Amino acid sequence: MPLTELDTPTLVLDLDAMERNIQRMAQFAAAHGVQWRPHAKLHKSARIAQRLVAAGASGCCVQKVAEAQAMAAGGVRDIYISNQVLAPQKLQRVAALARQLQQQGGRLALAVDSAQGVAGLAQALQGAGVPQAVEVFIEIDIGQHRAGVGPGAPAVALAQNIVRQRQLRLAGLHAYHGGAQHIEDGSQRAAAMQAAYALVRQTLEQLHAAGFTDLAVTGAGTGTFALEAASGLYTELQPGSFLCMDAHYARVQPVPQSPLPGPTHFEHALFIKTQVLSSCATHAVVDAGHKSHAIDSGLPMVWNQGQPPLYEFRNGGDEHGIVAPRVLHGALHAPVPALGQALWLVPGHCDPTVNLHDAFVGIRGGLEQGVVQEIIPIDARGALW
Amino acid sequence: MPLTELDTPTLVLDLDAMERNIQRMAQFAAAHGVQWRPHAKLHKSARIAQRLVAAGASGCCVQKVAEAQAMAAGGVRDIYISNQVLAPQKLQRVAALARQLQQQGGRLALAVDSAQGVAGLAQALQGAGVPQAVEVFIEIDIGQHRAGVGPGAPAVALAQNIVRQRQLRLAGLHAYHGGAQHIEDGSQRAAAMQAAYALVRQTLEQLHAAGFTDLAVTGAGTGTFALEAASGLYTELQPGSFLCMDAHYARVQPVPQSPLPGPTHFEHALFIKTQVLSSCATHAVVDAGHKSHAIDSGLPMVWNQGQPPLYEFRNGGDEHGIVAPRVLHGALHAPVPALGQALWLVPGHCDPTVNLHDAFVGIRGGLEQGVVQEIIPIDARGALW
Repeated sequence: MPLTELDTPTLVLDLDAMERNIQRMAQFAAAHGVQWRPHAKLHKSARIAQRLVAAGASGCCVQKVAEAQAMAAGGVRDIYISNQVLAPQKLQRVAALARQLQQQGGRLALAVDSAQGVAGLAQALQGAGVPQAVEVFIEIDIGQHRAGVGPGAPAVALAQNIVRQRQLRLAGLHAYHGGAQHIEDGSQRAAAMQAAYALVRQTLEQLHAAGFTDLAVTGAGTGTFALEAASGLYTELQPGSFLCMDAHYARVQPVPQSPLPGPTHFEHALFIKTQVLSSCATHAVVDAGHKSHAIDSGLPMVWNQGQPPLYEFRNGGDEHGIVAPRVLHGALHAPVPALGQALWLVPGHCDPTVNLHDAFVGIRGGLEQGVVQEIIPIDARGALW
Repeated sequence: MPLTELDTPTLVLDLDAMERNIQRMAQFAAAHGVQWRPHAKLHKSARIAQRLVAAGASGCCVQKVAEAQAMAAGGVRDIYISNQVLAPQKLQRVAALARQLQQQGGRLALAVDSAQGVAGLAQALQGAGVPQAVEVFIEIDIGQHRAGVGPGAPAVALAQNIVRQRQLRLAGLHAYHGGAQHIEDGSQRAAAMQAAYALVRQTLEQLHAAGFTDLAVTGAGTGTFALEAASGLYTELQPGSFLCMDAHYARVQPVPQSPLPGPTHFEHALFIKTQVLSSCATHAVVDAGHKSHAIDSGLPMVWNQGQPPLYEFRNGGDEHGIVAPRVLHGALHAPVPALGQALWLVPGHCDPTVNLHDAFVGIRGGLEQGVVQEIIPIDARGALW
């Protein structure tokens, strides 16, 4: 099917661009000798997770037990739930999934940040028939002040707690700074991460001193992954957004005088195709609103083949977007889009945008001349539990 | 099932509160002699649409053809697509749906705001076997500056266009001011609507002068419905949010010195049950982020049984929320919520929140002691086309 026939609004994945992004990340991970377990909370698709594994990723990260179940159902064998799980009904599902994955030669790992979380997980695993101990990573707070135990002594105390549970194996530290990923200024982002690495280093030293060795460190997002890799501390990178590159990451600048790649190392691969439904002298109204794309990290960018946008996107509510020509030197940059015209939007934030849709329309050959290649189910859309 | 066993995060609908809201709106519509066709873009559930019809509503409004199809599949017979439809593949579905509904004794209506839209719809209906002419409402711009033709002469020109198409019947005007619904100050909201009504009145007068009579006027949302009803211009009200009452509408104040009800006439009926996953001295982290609730109209409110909130909700990203005790007179209002504790959130904006979930968990007996009564499918979740 040619793209001109695609109904709107539709979530479109440029498979050619995505594959180039995957190759770039695979080459980076290989060159820096770090393991790579990209986050599936972005794409929520077992098929895409499998393609990342085929390109060298060890498995995938997820945030929710239900996401882990969806990835396992689609054949992914190495899954890390990079989040706390406390509810007994969830922990029962965790135990069943750990057994299933281990029996298939795979593994399930989890993050913990409390003694209560450790005890609950150990209890759920008791008698659940899981062959080997389940890996846990201690989440430490390295600057975001969201979840995580404090660096240093609190992490050591939790490690001592973990190793008393024979159902668990201390795998290492989870040290992710979500807030730093989107600091647009390169120097400020690097500074935030240097402060974070000091906390990771200090915690590792205290853990080593307490006799805990062979610890992995997992973390990193698309905004900072190269800094984590260069830190010498991290053994595993988790970034997911590099796959699609949202409009906000395009504004995250490289670190000055650094040879390391940043988010702009990658291409935009995720788009919303939309259509003009109404048009007047000043603006057009398109059929994509925030039921089609997330707006938490800013509004979408109207795609202009990689050139500076001709149009500004304004919030038109749940079901509409307002598209107006940008003004340059007092003149309109372009005519108001005509009734029926198709436009392509780059979402401000990919993760919650993907979560609004049931499938990616995978295309090849570019947005102008391309064709629909495959429909990729978003298996874990709405998998909140 | 008692609510204590409900997994999190989950979308919970308090059926008792919703039914009281429905009764209040039904009584209001009856007392003011206006038809009532509540918007299903909020609830997206055919079962709820049917209950509204049972309470006196004439049918439902929707924004998308796919929503209309979902409502018709669930037995709703009177459906108004209050939006422009231009794409030929959508218009084919419109024609098939109009035929189906008319054959069942029902009807499908649409909004138009362009000659191109009129021509496309008429063409799609030609030879499609639809027994009667399809009703169209002319959308006029009454102040939101989104879609709609200009009031007055442009609306008359479009009416002349419509009546030349034998497949169409001019039903009246669509005059909705979405932006005014959420003006928190009552006087300012009333002033915006008075300006809007002047445009509706002027357009009606010009249409009457041009020979168009027996025209309905449809519009209104939960922020302004009583003003439209009192204007003497509107024959049909569309509000949907009154059903659930989101946190933002709770901040929309009544019009001073007016006996007419405003949004606070209704009760909060929609909640997200969430659980504390992580806790420290200053705040707790819960498992509901903006993949569980929309944040376009502000963050959720932490429910305190109708009393002023004890906790502030802060954005924690896609998967997390930060809950911190409010500070009053220099002291914390309440202890930091404990690990594992359940909290109830009132979403900032119901419509896009509902669209994130596959079902409502319908409860009775209140949030503290209540039980799960029924699971209500959100049939049109993600129905963007």
